[in-house]
Amino acid sequence: MGDTNVRLSLPAVCVVWQTAMIILFGVFIRYDHESDAHWVEHRKHLNLTDIENDFYFRYPSFQDVHVMIFVGFGFLMTFLKRYSFGGVGFNFLIAAFGIQWALLMQGWFHSLDYTDGKIKIGIENLINADFCVAGCLIAYGALLGKVSPVQLMVLTLFGITLFAVEEFIILSLIHARDAGGSMVIHTFGAYYGLSISWMLYRPNLHQSSRLQGSVYHSDVFAMIGTLFLWMFWPSFNSAICDHGDGQHRAAINTYLCLASTVLTTVAISSLFQKHGKLDMVHIQNSTLAGGVAAGTAAEFMLMPYGCLIVGFCCGVISTLGYIFLTPFMEKRLKIQDTCGIHNLHAMPGVIGGIVGAVTAASASVEVYGHEGLVNTFDFEGKFKDMVPTTQGGHQAAGLCVALCFGIGGGIIVGAILRLPIWGDPADDDCFDDETYWEFWDYSHILM
Amino acid sequence: MGDTNVRLSLPAVCVVWQTAMIILFGVFIRYDHESDAHWVEHRKHLNLTDIENDFYFRYPSFQDVHVMIFVGFGFLMTFLKRYSFGGVGFNFLIAAFGIQWALLMQGWFHSLDYTDGKIKIGIENLINADFCVAGCLIAYGALLGKVSPVQLMVLTLFGITLFAVEEFIILSLIHARDAGGSMVIHTFGAYYGLSISWMLYRPNLHQSSRLQGSVYHSDVFAMIGTLFLWMFWPSFNSAICDHGDGQHRAAINTYLCLASTVLTTVAISSLFQKHGKLDMVHIQNSTLAGGVAAGTAAEFMLMPYGCLIVGFCCGVISTLGYIFLTPFMEKRLKIQDTCGIHNLHAMPGVIGGIVGAVTAASASVEVYGHEGLVNTFDFEGKFKDMVPTTQGGHQAAGLCVALCFGIGGGIIVGAILRLPIWGDPADDDCFDDETYWEFWDYSHILM
Amino acid sequence: MGDTNVRLSLPAVCVVWQTAMIILFGVFIRYDHESDAHWVEHRKHLNLTDIENDFYFRYPSFQDVHVMIFVGFGFLMTFLKRYSFGGVGFNFLIAAFGIQWALLMQGWFHSLDYTDGKIKIGIENLINADFCVAGCLIAYGALLGKVSPVQLMVLTLFGITLFAVEEFIILSLIHARDAGGSMVIHTFGAYYGLSISWMLYRPNLHQSSRLQGSVYHSDVFAMIGTLFLWMFWPSFNSAICDHGDGQHRAAINTYLCLASTVLTTVAISSLFQKHGKLDMVHIQNSTLAGGVAAGTAAEFMLMPYGCLIVGFCCGVISTLGYIFLTPFMEKRLKIQDTCGIHNLHAMPGVIGGIVGAVTAASASVEVYGHEGLVNTFDFEGKFKDMVPTTQGGHQAAGLCVALCFGIGGGIIVGAILRLPIWGDPADDDCFDDETYWEFWDYSHILM
Repeated sequence: MGDTNVRLSLPAVCVVWQTAMIILFGVFIRYDHESDAHWVEHRKHLNLTDIENDFYFRYPSFQDVHVMIFVGFGFLMTFLKRYSFGGVGFNFLIAAFGIQWALLMQGWFHSLDYTDGKIKIGIENLINADFCVAGCLIAYGALLGKVSPVQLMVLTLFGITLFAVEEFIILSLIHARDAGGSMVIHTFGAYYGLSISWMLYRPNLHQSSRLQGSVYHSDVFAMIGTLFLWMFWPSFNSAICDHGDGQHRAAINTYLCLASTVLTTVAISSLFQKHGKLDMVHIQNSTLAGGVAAGTAAEFMLMPYGCLIVGFCCGVISTLGYIFLTPFMEKRLKIQDTCGIHNLHAMPGVIGGIVGAVTAASASVEVYGHEGLVNTFDFEGKFKDMVPTTQGGHQAAGLCVALCFGIGGGIIVGAILRLPIWGDPADDDCFDDETYWEFWDYSHILM
Repeated sequence: MGDTNVRLSLPAVCVVWQTAMIILFGVFIRYDHESDAHWVEHRKHLNLTDIENDFYFRYPSFQDVHVMIFVGFGFLMTFLKRYSFGGVGFNFLIAAFGIQWALLMQGWFHSLDYTDGKIKIGIENLINADFCVAGCLIAYGALLGKVSPVQLMVLTLFGITLFAVEEFIILSLIHARDAGGSMVIHTFGAYYGLSISWMLYRPNLHQSSRLQGSVYHSDVFAMIGTLFLWMFWPSFNSAICDHGDGQHRAAINTYLCLASTVLTTVAISSLFQKHGKLDMVHIQNSTLAGGVAAGTAAEFMLMPYGCLIVGFCCGVISTLGYIFLTPFMEKRLKIQDTCGIHNLHAMPGVIGGIVGAVTAASASVEVYGHEGLVNTFDFEGKFKDMVPTTQGGHQAAGLCVALCFGIGGGIIVGAILRLPIWGDPADDDCFDDETYWEFWDYSHILM
Repeated sequence: MGDTNVRLSLPAVCVVWQTAMIILFGVFIRYDHESDAHWVEHRKHLNLTDIENDFYFRYPSFQDVHVMIFVGFGFLMTFLKRYSFGGVGFNFLIAAFGIQWALLMQGWFHSLDYTDGKIKIGIENLINADFCVAGCLIAYGALLGKVSPVQLMVLTLFGITLFAVEEFIILSLIHARDAGGSMVIHTFGAYYGLSISWMLYRPNLHQSSRLQGSVYHSDVFAMIGTLFLWMFWPSFNSAICDHGDGQHRAAINTYLCLASTVLTTVAISSLFQKHGKLDMVHIQNSTLAGGVAAGTAAEFMLMPYGCLIVGFCCGVISTLGYIFLTPFMEKRLKIQDTCGIHNLHAMPGVIGGIVGAVTAASASVEVYGHEGLVNTFDFEGKFKDMVPTTQGGHQAAGLCVALCFGIGGGIIVGAILRLPIWGDPADDDCFDDETYWEFWDYSHILM
């Protein structure tokens, strides 16, 4: 560690990987609708059923999710006084790479057309690629300020790959439901990042402690990220639901969970600070925990008051996590978690998985109706004889898979990232944009 | 006044009220579509008429309105040099509480299903809850920096309650039309806040005058709020219109009003400053006055040039208000109005109400067509014999009700907020985030 | 030059032009649907074909484009340390004026109803007005910090006028296709701005070189603009496509171009900086070049890997432009280009035009299908016998027209702007908000 000669490696990685993407896209990726003939045929028998899964109803949700990935996650990570460029800039870099790789990986698992060996991409694939990237961005939160951009590219390459496999196992093989990704995205992403952070533990990180804090306006920038995540989370959790009542419920459930979380976050933050003051770290992060926890059960009949209860608990647990657990993990478990993703994604993600399993297990024909039950839990094809209690077990199994992939994958990738070839920053260069960004003014242009 | 021991009260208020919400939601709130059976049945006879009031066409408007409430109002209030946390943070807190209470209050008045005593909530209810909260956020603008978070929670509790009653009287009993809420939201909210500010007058506020201004970057932050409000206002004014031509007109009318306001705001700002310079306060606020004034008449046949005229006048009046009226109100009327909501919401709201009354009174079958007239003014049921001139009178009556509720409610709530139990800041702690927010860096975490 | 007495002129220009808009709107502009009768009739035979070009499917795209114009372009120009007010504020002013004038100019050319001499405006007109304004905002990028607001108003008045003529020639007479405006918007706007900048060359601009750079947080503000442009560009390029596969492709193609650009921008930026560091200027600007270049060919069968290749090249060329070409143009060609629009809009715009011509010329019935070919290239009416190779030639002709209008128009308007009556800033007042904005705090209000 300590070699910061990133000169050759970052350009090389970017160019080589982008070239690989071009070749792979050339071989594998095609448009969903190969020709206008499709739409023209469509037009003749046009009614809403035919197009409801099509461009027009998914597209606004796609743009909302896109804003969460690039502005939401990006600005949430600008809170450090001297690492705002790295927060928003490297987030931009790895997300732009990740969505390309995700289109390929998820395509091979889910959208491969066996007749011609091509992946046909549409708007739903773009949403799924954004979801896939979210897992890696969560992992970045634990490592913020302590890794090089090349390490982040490697983390993303493996993270997307692991995600696609894990998602295939959980959703397709185990047949768990996870509309908003409490398990698939948040639990996996958070433990993946925390394990890597544990592998990359820096005993002398205190050497850059002068930079590991915020200034007034960097905290305001981070609120931009918080609010765009908070506002668009209902779109995130409902974006790939089947159209109809399930999608409707997903949006409302998430909205209610998030509203409730804000109040308990404020309560706990004020209760444990001297003079009852509020801590901006909690407001920026813990207010979002309800959205994470609503992910799996979003489309189920969680009931409005149930959502408020889930949000209530998550606000409490997440804020207590920031106050007590993060310092403990740092000192005792040797896990340095810059953004506190254990409190924002890991714990609420696991809660979300459990809530999903319980809600699924207690589903009944009385509440959902027969067709509702079939639609919501997709009891079709080879799962047509499944019952809700079994589904609950499958949900729990899905959660375990997400945990295993996160922790196991993180340890392996962490070992790879310990190789001394990635140009990671020295301990006293952490959390410092000057390590990777040019600081000058443009006066040279004028001469 | 002056006791800042907020330690016990804020957590208590947040937890107790959130618990109350959970219980009330458990008793009263259900999903709009109780089961998927609904959608399945739907699907069979699917055509656009059936779903046009449903999820898909309302949802993008809902997200736009949501952005206005949390980012728009929130960032507009970050302009003070040392109260940006309070501006965006407390806005977040009271909006998240307010939408829950609004779902209940508005539900009892408008969406209660008498067959089972439940409120069935869908996307339209979420939009209305956001609208309801907007009234309280406007009121917060007058009080920014001078009240404690507990006082804001109390203000919101009573504000939402008054709003729901006032809205029921104006829209349902008086049968006034108010698509974008010039009267119901802006006039009510602004006079509610101004009356409270008058009740809480601080003669020694000059003690914190060093903080009652902006710095360079806090003004840029405020422009984020301004622009998101400005851009999405067409969605705000058209969000709950009936689908069809009325909604189409509401978006276009608002867009044109706002475009026109920008130019006259710049003109007046430059005209009255020495050396013709511009004042950022005017650009941040007065440019939005046209959207406020377009609220009531948005769905009427205001005509494109009529919109430009309304916007023209509002830009002039609002900017002159900032230059002459705000200092006058402060000195003579003892109303301290931090954000100048009298210029941005009160005057344009009243103008909007008057424009709405005049436009309604002059509506004719020639211009709207018979069906158009019935649809636009909802001349159905017990109002089916109403004529446009009568409607104009009802609009004027609605405006008076909004004024009475705003002023009367504000005086009563202001009296409550004067009780010395709410932990409001001392005169020399006003406009200072350090009163309610912890300032530290995270270096303690590293030890 | 050098007279900064803007006192009389800015208010006068704003008020007079806004009044002119009111009169012209009164004479010419009406709603698309004059009365609700239209919609009522509609409702009877409602199916998606009838309304697909209507309000509901265009409106979300409109709002995305609106965000790009006001927040995207506005915040992208906040990067200067002491010209953020001017960047976002004057962008706001000229965009708000420009959309009104564009509704008239484009209406006269494209939407005039000859039966009654009126322009009927709907959502599609609003999107086109935003597009038209984009050309002028691009031109502003070259002049940022060096012109007065009155000069910007004049630039916008002539720019919109030239745009409408040029667009009519390219799209209607020459029958070129240009969904996202690589030629019509970007090439025209960029050369228009560069020519004006050449005419207004300031040999002593170094006198304000102390201000011609960024500070840490102004660069973070600029990233807000970058990201909103980047995220919503798929909506920009697909907003006015015909519904169906073409629109679907336009969104996907743009998304892929942009993803690819980010990686090569990072690579080149790192490669040419000492120690392999990144330059924020490149990340803010060159990452967007792919969206510009995808404009013309967005709705064509560019193929996913083709998009990645276009994005790859644009990232390289645009970043190299910032490193080598901008200093060269400044020193040798006497073109001072504050935001580097030559690298972000001019070169990628020309590339986009060429890519469009080549893609069109190589279109075939095998790839598009017969109906697809007719739909995509609009081979209807008097162009029904056109073939793809001819279309390629027409595309190339369109690019030439855009270049001629940009350069020619810019030289003429530049000559007008050299008149000593516009109050442009002195050389040592450039890039300084204090020239046009009042700097004070509000303490005077409290007395």
